[in-house]
Amino acid sequence: MQRGLGLIGTGYLAKAFAVGYRAMPVLFGPDAGVPVLELVCTSSLPGAERAAAALGFNRATATSEDVIVDPSVEIVVVNTPNHLHAPMALAAIRAGKHVHCEKPLGLSPAECRSMTLAAEAAGVRTIVGFNYRQNPATALAREIIQSGEIGEAISIRATHNEDFMADPDIPLGWKHRKATAGHGALVDVGSHIVCIAEYLLGPIARVCGRLRTVIETRPVQAGASERGPVETDDEARFLLEFVSGMGGMIEASRIATGRKMQLGYEVYGTRGSLCFDQQRMSELQLYEAKGPTGRRGFKTIPIAAEHPDYGAFGAGPGHGIGFNDQKIIECRRFLEAIATGRPASPDFRAAWQVSEVLEAVARSSESGSWEAVSPI
Amino acid sequence: MQRGLGLIGTGYLAKAFAVGYRAMPVLFGPDAGVPVLELVCTSSLPGAERAAAALGFNRATATSEDVIVDPSVEIVVVNTPNHLHAPMALAAIRAGKHVHCEKPLGLSPAECRSMTLAAEAAGVRTIVGFNYRQNPATALAREIIQSGEIGEAISIRATHNEDFMADPDIPLGWKHRKATAGHGALVDVGSHIVCIAEYLLGPIARVCGRLRTVIETRPVQAGASERGPVETDDEARFLLEFVSGMGGMIEASRIATGRKMQLGYEVYGTRGSLCFDQQRMSELQLYEAKGPTGRRGFKTIPIAAEHPDYGAFGAGPGHGIGFNDQKIIECRRFLEAIATGRPASPDFRAAWQVSEVLEAVARSSESGSWEAVSPI
Amino acid sequence: MQRGLGLIGTGYLAKAFAVGYRAMPVLFGPDAGVPVLELVCTSSLPGAERAAAALGFNRATATSEDVIVDPSVEIVVVNTPNHLHAPMALAAIRAGKHVHCEKPLGLSPAECRSMTLAAEAAGVRTIVGFNYRQNPATALAREIIQSGEIGEAISIRATHNEDFMADPDIPLGWKHRKATAGHGALVDVGSHIVCIAEYLLGPIARVCGRLRTVIETRPVQAGASERGPVETDDEARFLLEFVSGMGGMIEASRIATGRKMQLGYEVYGTRGSLCFDQQRMSELQLYEAKGPTGRRGFKTIPIAAEHPDYGAFGAGPGHGIGFNDQKIIECRRFLEAIATGRPASPDFRAAWQVSEVLEAVARSSESGSWEAVSPI
Amino acid sequence: MQRGLGLIGTGYLAKAFAVGYRAMPVLFGPDAGVPVLELVCTSSLPGAERAAAALGFNRATATSEDVIVDPSVEIVVVNTPNHLHAPMALAAIRAGKHVHCEKPLGLSPAECRSMTLAAEAAGVRTIVGFNYRQNPATALAREIIQSGEIGEAISIRATHNEDFMADPDIPLGWKHRKATAGHGALVDVGSHIVCIAEYLLGPIARVCGRLRTVIETRPVQAGASERGPVETDDEARFLLEFVSGMGGMIEASRIATGRKMQLGYEVYGTRGSLCFDQQRMSELQLYEAKGPTGRRGFKTIPIAAEHPDYGAFGAGPGHGIGFNDQKIIECRRFLEAIATGRPASPDFRAAWQVSEVLEAVARSSESGSWEAVSPI
Repeated sequence: MQRGLGLIGTGYLAKAFAVGYRAMPVLFGPDAGVPVLELVCTSSLPGAERAAAALGFNRATATSEDVIVDPSVEIVVVNTPNHLHAPMALAAIRAGKHVHCEKPLGLSPAECRSMTLAAEAAGVRTIVGFNYRQNPATALAREIIQSGEIGEAISIRATHNEDFMADPDIPLGWKHRKATAGHGALVDVGSHIVCIAEYLLGPIARVCGRLRTVIETRPVQAGASERGPVETDDEARFLLEFVSGMGGMIEASRIATGRKMQLGYEVYGTRGSLCFDQQRMSELQLYEAKGPTGRRGFKTIPIAAEHPDYGAFGAGPGHGIGFNDQKIIECRRFLEAIATGRPASPDFRAAWQVSEVLEAVARSSESGSWEAVSPI
Repeated sequence: MQRGLGLIGTGYLAKAFAVGYRAMPVLFGPDAGVPVLELVCTSSLPGAERAAAALGFNRATATSEDVIVDPSVEIVVVNTPNHLHAPMALAAIRAGKHVHCEKPLGLSPAECRSMTLAAEAAGVRTIVGFNYRQNPATALAREIIQSGEIGEAISIRATHNEDFMADPDIPLGWKHRKATAGHGALVDVGSHIVCIAEYLLGPIARVCGRLRTVIETRPVQAGASERGPVETDDEARFLLEFVSGMGGMIEASRIATGRKMQLGYEVYGTRGSLCFDQQRMSELQLYEAKGPTGRRGFKTIPIAAEHPDYGAFGAGPGHGIGFNDQKIIECRRFLEAIATGRPASPDFRAAWQVSEVLEAVARSSESGSWEAVSPI
Repeated sequence: MQRGLGLIGTGYLAKAFAVGYRAMPVLFGPDAGVPVLELVCTSSLPGAERAAAALGFNRATATSEDVIVDPSVEIVVVNTPNHLHAPMALAAIRAGKHVHCEKPLGLSPAECRSMTLAAEAAGVRTIVGFNYRQNPATALAREIIQSGEIGEAISIRATHNEDFMADPDIPLGWKHRKATAGHGALVDVGSHIVCIAEYLLGPIARVCGRLRTVIETRPVQAGASERGPVETDDEARFLLEFVSGMGGMIEASRIATGRKMQLGYEVYGTRGSLCFDQQRMSELQLYEAKGPTGRRGFKTIPIAAEHPDYGAFGAGPGHGIGFNDQKIIECRRFLEAIATGRPASPDFRAAWQVSEVLEAVARSSESGSWEAVSPI
Repeated sequence: MQRGLGLIGTGYLAKAFAVGYRAMPVLFGPDAGVPVLELVCTSSLPGAERAAAALGFNRATATSEDVIVDPSVEIVVVNTPNHLHAPMALAAIRAGKHVHCEKPLGLSPAECRSMTLAAEAAGVRTIVGFNYRQNPATALAREIIQSGEIGEAISIRATHNEDFMADPDIPLGWKHRKATAGHGALVDVGSHIVCIAEYLLGPIARVCGRLRTVIETRPVQAGASERGPVETDDEARFLLEFVSGMGGMIEASRIATGRKMQLGYEVYGTRGSLCFDQQRMSELQLYEAKGPTGRRGFKTIPIAAEHPDYGAFGAGPGHGIGFNDQKIIECRRFLEAIATGRPASPDFRAAWQVSEVLEAVARSSESGSWEAVSPI
């Protein structure tokens, strides 16, 4: 069954979406539906036409409304700057489309809430582009935790550090303004690792954290000597308590000099532990407190066909998956959800929950004390 | 410009070819041509039809000749067992098609020679599926060596070890017979690392090596108690001398228990060294003998847009590429060669040279002494 | 010049002290004095005599007072359970001895304060056994930070996790009672990493943290079915703010299943970063944001003669130091301090400061909000 | 029981010997005897006196004969340049002393043979300073292999690469002349890894290799513009066949730019594999082909009290040993041998066997074919 796709926004990740939807049925088979790249939209028509040619879409438009109302478009992919996620997604939902929204879902929990409730009321499927969560290694980590292989989980230490804003001469942009970005590192990278933490260990109940804006001013435009204030955080750190009672802590930074993809976590359990580093994304480390003590150690497990989703890629064990492969899996998850009518993971509701956690961190940074995550 | 594609053989790597050709223009742009997945062939028609549906080909056939003569097929992909590479490729060449042949090219240097000469006489483009060679990290390694950044290259130590034949109860198959496989580990994995060694450092002049068949018998079929002899090698080890005078050594095994993708190399130069491990395929280690001695060390460079081909994938620095991404690059290389009329790398000639090296190793294993690689 | 040594307590680390003082002059030369292992004390005389023979002390006693008043003893090493550190050290100070005290210094900031002020009033030298701080790799990290090689330091993420209390059937002991241990993981391992954080980056001003006792009861004695309450923490996590304004976070655990010596830190600066892991204690990772972007990466620097103290060990570069070598360096530091009359590092005052940080974490865990570290 | 020690030669490793013998009884206990550092010798008397003070010897001499005949010296440590090992050791043997000789034992198999036969005839104990062999991680590797935990051993790939001669302006010295050094990298580092290979897997029967002198001339003295020829090899590579039928290959280099201590090996077996790297000397990697395939991987085992010798050091599991600790273990091995009258490991005979292997490699490099190792 074919499913028409409309893409709004041709910036970062547009290629990943195009490859993801094109490659998905080849790797996973056509049973959940075959996406047709129907219509692509960006603000200028020539730009949209170039994108259509480059990405393999059938048609182009400069009007997002065209995408939303197009009868051959069944799935709308929202790949715009953060502050347009809500209006675009809500319009698509109103038009009865399934929505694949890039992360973060909305700028605030309130936005996320309205998006979630709208989608649920409309009965459309949703998914949010927390692509690292789709890594087979992380899916394996979850499987190990949930099976009890490491006993009862006790705590997590997690990080998502990059350095894409470490240069103080990167000029002010939408990521530096509260109105367009909501938050800084907390949202850009922190949302990924919070999403993963909840995927692995369930909902977070309380947090205590601190946001820091280290580079307080930036050039008002590239090369300008005039500098204006940065409104969003460069670093976020917070302690966690899960609903289950487990503890943990998270660091998220966009100015961690030298780090390009330091998304990782270490989960300790009563009978084992596991450890993951997205920089070496095709392996998981597992410690099992069993067997002779002199033969124990962290085991480096290369991801193979025995593990979630990897088999679909057709490669030998340990032969490795890449960044875009995660997007392919994400597209698969969404098509499955549409085909079955069951929620995708992570859907808008899961992303709303992430947003509540981030907002509680921001509140805690103001109050200087623990803050409960608002129930969703 | 569209270029019709015919795929012969739907076993291992068929998905990689399908994704490779479909994703290529999305990532690299359509300037070198846009592949159209026209016709797929395997021995049974229902099987071919299933493959067409699964892999996204327009049509299916059970007759390889159909693929070869089809006027809408401009590129023939040969993805059959090793002993059919030569007849399929030669037929395609005779029909004036460009040929993308899975590795190893032929069963013997003689076969490789006739395939190479036929393709050159016909003026068609060729490429061979030594996909690891297309890894951006290895392309970066070559760039570093050729720029003189590590001084004059002195030697290489390289390995390609896997364990897919480590279980002694895997039954006899075409890979265990000389007539169908040529050699064992020497060809299955050794050919990859020889190809890379020559890509990095130029042609190999002489070798001295030893082939070993450790698991001497295998069940005649799955579960059988009767066992028959294994004719091909499980392990190959050899010393090298390059035409340049450089030295080195290589290990290749298909029974290296625990190793799934231990393709790696260490190249020493007079002013630096580099080190690569396909198990961590998105990074390269570089040592530069400069700066204060107390600040020297092997640097782990994450592959980023500054490096060959990675930029096309659209992902952030160090965000990682995977196994299939190498095939996408290989497809790109081939389309470029077709578009420009210049040889692809590695073409049939390069693969013939690899075959001569492997054959010299086999001769050396018999003679117990150094053997010159026959000039091509 | 010879300096007589008295050791009180023959438990864990007694060997390290004996080797440390014996090997020190051989490696560093006799210029700072040559220790003489004069007198060793433990609670039973036969035990003390066995220890004297085993560790190479000249004499033995079962009375700590004997050590303290012995005229040939110039240096008293306090290697007792935590709650005896203060009385032993204070008695030794009163007797005019230099005191080498195992960590933690006292059970509370108040004890540490009185020990520090007593030593300073008496004019004796002191050092505290935070041996990991003496690792040449960490001394190199400090040198790099202080020289500005990574620009201005921004933040630290640090950990000291072990699993020596992960087994819930380890019976109750002095480490589980507040009266004898003060705190649990916070002190056992957290004190090490706090000491290092302050060594690298200066004093900590404020903290916000949480202590957790995960294993709430333990057998009252080995093998007993009756279980009693654990009073001290198994895990401590806290956010930091340094006096300099820098931020950070620390995790310390004694139940981190699988971790035996996961003491590590990552320090981010404006122009570089560094990363250390005591599990690979003879190397430091350094990232420098300079040179072509395509050649940047974390560099693994093997510790060599160019770095602090390593040269004294006489081994080749990167040949590796071990746990006890850190104690040898600590002994060297102390003899230098005695010889020169200048404070050792870390002396009682530095350890008192660590104690104030830990106490602020404990207060914060009660209050649920940030707590200032009391000024010393 | 006290055992008097005489040390001949105060160059590299003199500190290691002094610390090794002093620390040994403290760590392992006095049961195998307590060494007394009696007499030290180097060519000038003032130098010897300085060494005595620095290293803690009772007396000094400039005459090696003094050491050999001294009645209070029971053990002679030969730490001279390579070509003096034989005359010194033979004289000591004639005087009835036990001999601890630095590696390599002699310059040629003939020398090694005469030294071995003399010692065996005299009934004295011998040991040779192949200190890496004493690393607990390597002792654990042997234990694992011999217990059958990795099934039947199949092959080994091993390396000992350093770069101490990589600078082409290091002037000519005794290591560059055949008469004083025998061979170059083959002996300096190759002997270590051959010794370990035989320790792990038994005697080597045949080899096929190649020696290369890459830096063909060096300054006749430091800073000189005149250059003279280098007679010894910079790199050695060879294929192996063990008496057991196992295969393997070894690389040894003194010009491997960037490598300071790349001694390592990978041993493949039919049911598992192990992997070691002296750069991370306190851990061993083990793969066991058992349990669910999706949970298999190389396990990083931190060396702990369950493993050979580590317990004596008194440190926690995974807390790490260093270069000099290997010498301490070597001294322990020798004292045990003297106390029990049983051979130490590796004794002169084991070192002679190593020498025969190296010589066969050199012969093979000349003949261009496989050479049998002469039986000892």
